[in-house]
Amino acid sequence: MVDHIDAAQIAAWELLAQAAADAAADAVMPYFRSGLAAENKADNGGYDPVTLADRAAEVAIRGVIASAEPSHGFFGEEYGSVDGNSDLQWVVDPIDGTRAFVLGLPTWGTLIALQHRGRSILGVMAQPFTRERFWSGDGQSWFRGPDGTTRPLKTRTCTDLSRAMLSSTHPDLFAAGDERDGFRRVLGASRDCRYGGDCYAYCLVAMGLIDLVVEAGLKAYDVAALVPIIEGAGGIMTTWDGRPADGGGRIIAAGDALVHAQALALLAAPSR
Amino acid sequence: MVDHIDAAQIAAWELLAQAAADAAADAVMPYFRSGLAAENKADNGGYDPVTLADRAAEVAIRGVIASAEPSHGFFGEEYGSVDGNSDLQWVVDPIDGTRAFVLGLPTWGTLIALQHRGRSILGVMAQPFTRERFWSGDGQSWFRGPDGTTRPLKTRTCTDLSRAMLSSTHPDLFAAGDERDGFRRVLGASRDCRYGGDCYAYCLVAMGLIDLVVEAGLKAYDVAALVPIIEGAGGIMTTWDGRPADGGGRIIAAGDALVHAQALALLAAPSR
Repeated sequence: MVDHIDAAQIAAWELLAQAAADAAADAVMPYFRSGLAAENKADNGGYDPVTLADRAAEVAIRGVIASAEPSHGFFGEEYGSVDGNSDLQWVVDPIDGTRAFVLGLPTWGTLIALQHRGRSILGVMAQPFTRERFWSGDGQSWFRGPDGTTRPLKTRTCTDLSRAMLSSTHPDLFAAGDERDGFRRVLGASRDCRYGGDCYAYCLVAMGLIDLVVEAGLKAYDVAALVPIIEGAGGIMTTWDGRPADGGGRIIAAGDALVHAQALALLAAPSR
Repeated sequence: MVDHIDAAQIAAWELLAQAAADAAADAVMPYFRSGLAAENKADNGGYDPVTLADRAAEVAIRGVIASAEPSHGFFGEEYGSVDGNSDLQWVVDPIDGTRAFVLGLPTWGTLIALQHRGRSILGVMAQPFTRERFWSGDGQSWFRGPDGTTRPLKTRTCTDLSRAMLSSTHPDLFAAGDERDGFRRVLGASRDCRYGGDCYAYCLVAMGLIDLVVEAGLKAYDVAALVPIIEGAGGIMTTWDGRPADGGGRIIAAGDALVHAQALALLAAPSR
């Protein structure tokens, strides 16, 4: 929590993030499952549909934010960083889960965060195909579903890793060695694992349906919006060594601090 | 194709299947992401929410079908088989992808097929949360999305396995030995693999967004509805040894017959 920024100011920025997510949806949806996307392109160096969609969405988001807050910094996946005259920087992934996007699966999302000196003070995850939105900016996390109703998000209790439902985007996300070994220890100690969640899985931790997400190799824009959503729902999200997750890297998100602690112990390389 | 059953009759049964899918949606949706579902129950032998939802949906489907076609047979995941006085049998999985259902992911679906002497003559896959429906009964496959518009489904061309996007529900679906080895050979030869697709992945093959699904250990009710959807979109779906897929087992679905043949060769145990 950043207690020296006025809550009403954060609420106004959260509305700005929501407007930016609306603009991103308009930019992205024409590409989702489009005829372009259905072409099976090999890696030929050309612009693929997801790149076009990514760029269109980032331009749209940047436009909405820059017109309201021109002094703020901006860091996006596609166009990199624009430094503002401010401790405040927007951190944006226009399409998190590009593989899901390309394959037509609805687990990708648009991630928009505002960070103050590198720590997220608000975050929005928008899934425009399912018309779902997850967000937090006031210390509480919220969900709006396809029916348009909004409700608070709350992680569930899970006091033992052996009962935890784990999710991770892909088993090959982890570098060989300590990283893969650490993930495998958690995998072996968990009740069950589901692959293929992308940012959607973190939001389902906030919703109290998944207990644990363990991933690696993430960028700041992959996680910045998700940290306040997890924390505002009562969960905990850190790096594998227990530090703030806001910058990316090896990331663990849990609905219950007890499961977080148990998994953290297994992720650490065993002492020799 | 079953050419001795009148096309108008199949069209009428397809409407019956759609009505049954509507009834299933009404029965299932109160359980999806419900408070009940958010309880993290260990395997305590009690009825979990997905079981309750599965049973409620199967009763609803069976009721719709039995009232219109009491002489037809019925085989469902939850309540097993009811033999009718007919070569025709409905084959139903009320919630295919129960793990996805429990975790709140939208890749599960209600599968309803009508088989004539063990071969599917129509199939419906309904995803009531995203309000998507995929079906086939007239030799052509169709999709209706959240916006309510209906369009035909067409697989895409993919002439080389090295360019194929592969999907499979879980890397641990395969029994150790020849089965796992066969999957790994296809995995190694494909462009990329996405886990966690459930029945949704087959429908995305029909939509021309995924090239290949390889799975094992499937039941008839897991695949019966998907065979006509894949075939009616121009794809091919068989067992790993090239026989009809309608009965389940080790299954491969491909959008292009060339990729199907290449994968089939790798799935077969190498000659020694």
